[in-house]
Amino acid sequence: MSEIKIALLGLGTVGTGVYSSLLKRKPEIEQLLGKRIRLSGILIKNPAKPRSDFQKAPLYSEFEKILGKEAPNVVIEAIGGIEPARTYITRSLEAGCHVISANKDLIARHGEELIRLAKEKGVRFVYEASVGGGIPVLRTLRELLRINKVQHVEGILNGTSNFILSHMRTTGCTFPEALELAQQKGYAEPDPTNDIEGLDAFYKAMVLSKWIYGVQPLWEEAEVKGIGNVRLEEIQLAEQLGLRLKHLVLLDDSLELKVKPVLVDSEHPLYGVEGVDNAVRIQTDLLGCLTLQGPGAGAEATASAIVEDFLSLYETGSVYQDKPAVSEVVQRKQAKEGTTYLLIGEKEHISGETISVLQLQGAVLDTVSLPDASVIALLYAGDLPVSPLPFTSIYPVRLSSASEAAEEVLL
Amino acid sequence: MSEIKIALLGLGTVGTGVYSSLLKRKPEIEQLLGKRIRLSGILIKNPAKPRSDFQKAPLYSEFEKILGKEAPNVVIEAIGGIEPARTYITRSLEAGCHVISANKDLIARHGEELIRLAKEKGVRFVYEASVGGGIPVLRTLRELLRINKVQHVEGILNGTSNFILSHMRTTGCTFPEALELAQQKGYAEPDPTNDIEGLDAFYKAMVLSKWIYGVQPLWEEAEVKGIGNVRLEEIQLAEQLGLRLKHLVLLDDSLELKVKPVLVDSEHPLYGVEGVDNAVRIQTDLLGCLTLQGPGAGAEATASAIVEDFLSLYETGSVYQDKPAVSEVVQRKQAKEGTTYLLIGEKEHISGETISVLQLQGAVLDTVSLPDASVIALLYAGDLPVSPLPFTSIYPVRLSSASEAAEEVLL
Repeated sequence: MSEIKIALLGLGTVGTGVYSSLLKRKPEIEQLLGKRIRLSGILIKNPAKPRSDFQKAPLYSEFEKILGKEAPNVVIEAIGGIEPARTYITRSLEAGCHVISANKDLIARHGEELIRLAKEKGVRFVYEASVGGGIPVLRTLRELLRINKVQHVEGILNGTSNFILSHMRTTGCTFPEALELAQQKGYAEPDPTNDIEGLDAFYKAMVLSKWIYGVQPLWEEAEVKGIGNVRLEEIQLAEQLGLRLKHLVLLDDSLELKVKPVLVDSEHPLYGVEGVDNAVRIQTDLLGCLTLQGPGAGAEATASAIVEDFLSLYETGSVYQDKPAVSEVVQRKQAKEGTTYLLIGEKEHISGETISVLQLQGAVLDTVSLPDASVIALLYAGDLPVSPLPFTSIYPVRLSSASEAAEEVLL
Repeated sequence: MSEIKIALLGLGTVGTGVYSSLLKRKPEIEQLLGKRIRLSGILIKNPAKPRSDFQKAPLYSEFEKILGKEAPNVVIEAIGGIEPARTYITRSLEAGCHVISANKDLIARHGEELIRLAKEKGVRFVYEASVGGGIPVLRTLRELLRINKVQHVEGILNGTSNFILSHMRTTGCTFPEALELAQQKGYAEPDPTNDIEGLDAFYKAMVLSKWIYGVQPLWEEAEVKGIGNVRLEEIQLAEQLGLRLKHLVLLDDSLELKVKPVLVDSEHPLYGVEGVDNAVRIQTDLLGCLTLQGPGAGAEATASAIVEDFLSLYETGSVYQDKPAVSEVVQRKQAKEGTTYLLIGEKEHISGETISVLQLQGAVLDTVSLPDASVIALLYAGDLPVSPLPFTSIYPVRLSSASEAAEEVLL
């Protein structure tokens, strides 16, 4: 029985999850592959740190020793960030190793060069865990939707933002309180900028776009907004209207990308996606609308995606990774249907005249206000006036119904 | 460039959808496969019926002519029901054709013999479209969750029942009215028995069980209940409590199978699945909880599953169809945690004494009633007494939260 040598880079949350999954599932993995597997080395930052649990594999603090005299067959990168991850992956591919990564920042920025290098070297570079945590988003798109053209994708791709918004809504706590809890629970990093500013979701959207359409939108043209400015009152107001605020990625086949907080109604497939769950709603021309939901972060869920990627290296032919399905970028005129917005502002700053003007523009207006807050909210269906409006927040609302979508497909 | 000959059996909703998808997508399919495809024949029931749209392939009313002198490479069965589908599939496999089918009744009953025959003949028998319409449930389970053990599956697998329940809730119409609309829209068959009695979902659950665990529960031990007796008042009562009635399939790794109406709360991943959508919530030991949602019926969605199956015959190795992942049946003690029930009955038949008895048994009781109906409802958490209860309906309630499930996985 031949042997597969695996090296693991990093022993943080993801690395530890991968380590224990490989160890715990060794018999099943070996049975599925018909080969033995062995952890040939683990790269750690601090060799002085006591680690009683990791006695089954040699620990190294120098990357050179990971490649050693005889390079491993597979390198799993669980370090994150651009450097030194980029250098280590490049070196591994050059040494003829398959590489598995969960590193969305790196793949969004340098994925193309790494994929090209892998092809040149006749090895594979796979990264299911970089988008949607444990959800097999990338492989579903490329392996199970071969003939389906992806028209647009709508997703909750940042578990931390989703957890914060869910927690504010259900407990009535403020943004800083929810963020602190997310950090305590280990969902958010000590520096949560990438999560709450929408950058983490943006990187994942870039990986997705390249994966589906073979190309990324221009980085500077994408609209990226995080949840840092969301106030509790706004979430509560929305709830009175039967709406929930979700931090969404919206990507379509004309390469228009928006990453921002959006209100969704109770019929929307992403309405019920709560806590640290992620979800992706994929609209295709043949199947219709397929939604995948699951844990977007966490050691075990991410380890699941990485171990499944590992099995795919040895269990399938290499057709999928290198051969995209049929989706392509579509040139589309800018004509968009009228959108619904929730406009929120301070009572004293919004005159009756402003409201009248909006009504005159053919908008459907509804007024809701919280008893103890000096806010006013208007539901507006139509094109927003270009002139500045005296509202503190303007959220787009997606009134997309699962049943309507299904009927559209069926009738 | 070599050629793949395809024969299509049946030109109903599914057959017509497959026909037009194959025709419309011919260039892309040929590009993906690097082979030409040709419809070598279509089997129809009534040769006298005028069909101006089907000029691209010869129409036959005798099955023998479909196999002809040189058998097609692939036979797509879109007839439904046990006979003559079973005979035609058997004959096709014997003649060395791959077979694709959407026929859950047949696969639930005779799948094993057909799979065995396909193996003997060195061809493949695939049937993604038989469970969950366009959702790639079967292939996700077998191709993307190789190392994940499936602990339990919870699904909405009958689009007609889901449409009827959704429609009653949102419009306040009665069961017969909703059923009539479902028939008008073509969701329900002229004889809707299989849909509304839960048999359609039951067959799909049997296909799923065999697929995941390699074995079916005993047919006579499964609890199967349809939505035929559901009253509008019950749905409205449930809504007052924040609950929705869903017709669910509940299958676990001890081979316990229940197919019946269940109440779910707004945090449950299947709460927002409305209209003819289907959804499957797959609980695994590593990834956690993965939910797939999409159109459960309709010509195009079903055609999508069939055409994707067709591509998989020629694009992947044959490892997956014949090599299940690691899930296995678990022997489990009968100890189940206390369940929550909604008990609904006529006011005049439920004494204060009954309520007191239930309260004394340590249950958490809550009372709701509609102003204009003589009904009473009690929310009960605990084990139901064995003695007969004076309620007309007793629904189990699933208070499963996406965020809680995710936390369970993560913490």
